[in-house]
Amino acid sequence: MRARNKPWADDFLKENNHIVELTPFDHKDKWKTVFNDNNPIHLEIGTGKGQFITGMAKQHKDVNFIGIEIAKSIIVSAVQKVSDSEQGNIRLINEDAKDLREFFGENEVEKIYLNFSDPWPKSRHEKRRLSYNTFLEQYRDILTENGEIILKTDNKSLFEYSLVSFSKFGMELDEVLLNLHEENDPLNVMTEYEEKFSEKGQAIYRCKASFKKQKKD
Amino acid sequence: MRARNKPWADDFLKENNHIVELTPFDHKDKWKTVFNDNNPIHLEIGTGKGQFITGMAKQHKDVNFIGIEIAKSIIVSAVQKVSDSEQGNIRLINEDAKDLREFFGENEVEKIYLNFSDPWPKSRHEKRRLSYNTFLEQYRDILTENGEIILKTDNKSLFEYSLVSFSKFGMELDEVLLNLHEENDPLNVMTEYEEKFSEKGQAIYRCKASFKKQKKD
Repeated sequence: MRARNKPWADDFLKENNHIVELTPFDHKDKWKTVFNDNNPIHLEIGTGKGQFITGMAKQHKDVNFIGIEIAKSIIVSAVQKVSDSEQGNIRLINEDAKDLREFFGENEVEKIYLNFSDPWPKSRHEKRRLSYNTFLEQYRDILTENGEIILKTDNKSLFEYSLVSFSKFGMELDEVLLNLHEENDPLNVMTEYEEKFSEKGQAIYRCKASFKKQKKD
Repeated sequence: MRARNKPWADDFLKENNHIVELTPFDHKDKWKTVFNDNNPIHLEIGTGKGQFITGMAKQHKDVNFIGIEIAKSIIVSAVQKVSDSEQGNIRLINEDAKDLREFFGENEVEKIYLNFSDPWPKSRHEKRRLSYNTFLEQYRDILTENGEIILKTDNKSLFEYSLVSFSKFGMELDEVLLNLHEENDPLNVMTEYEEKFSEKGQAIYRCKASFKKQKKD
């Protein structure tokens, strides 16, 4: 279902400015003051309707979660879900994540979640894939030394591409799973898409990758 | 079908000493003189009945192929196949490939093929997997600077393990395919196992990994 235009969305986001950060650029290097504690910050790029970030925030109360979602008509659902969850450790950003360094300072983020990102299957769109090297440069800059990227997808080609792209960039693979739901990871929080796809018996791929070695040099 | 004891195998191998190298340790650093040319050397570990190495040798006449197979009752089939093929660019070794550095000098091999290796699924047998780091050390030592490992398997766990193991060792992934036969690679030569498994519709995984960066340092 395509997200419909929601004329009331702007007002709704403004009303919920304790959840949606309306001026996220101002918080660069200062997110700790937004959350008012020293807990690590985890970032989800493409938060969608917010099932993943809400579930994670409930599971990890000692972590602060930030979700970025470009589509206004979709992020409103996430805002509602966060509001209902009454979790204080979530903030949402309704912006295009073109350059994360506009929102985050060096070493400000501990983990980045790339969940079911657009696979951009055509070669000429390679640069738009969130595991393309210009994005990896951003992730490296904003992640802490032991920071990690956790990627989940049902798209085989995107997964193959991402493993090679991470590796070519000098990243280290900490985990590769070719059928996540076979592993029965009790801590896995499903996104809306993941729930739908895995119900159909489709394999979900997951990998974890870090820049460790590169930062040590 | 288990390979039966073949009492005639010893004599058969001796008769075919133009194909089977009976004193392979003597050829360390001198394999070029065995083949009597300067063509690159590719190595298959676990050659089985020889379908892969024979097919590859036909396809790449400017490459010399060496296959190692520990089981005498199996390598006899490979010897017969090589003999029938009349390819002069193949040699076989009937030894345990415990330490490849006993057979090969530094930079003597350009590619190593690991085809459908024993997955050794139990954690306590990790050290026996051919993508365990003590094996990777051997591969690094005998491979040329731009040398490559090409691994094929139908075993998901071994594939996941190998990708992480390669990466942790500092190797670079040049290719990852999660369903090789979907790609329709016209140059892919199937092993006997591969033919059987893929006919059943089972996915065949392939990856290519190299030590490039490590050697440059």
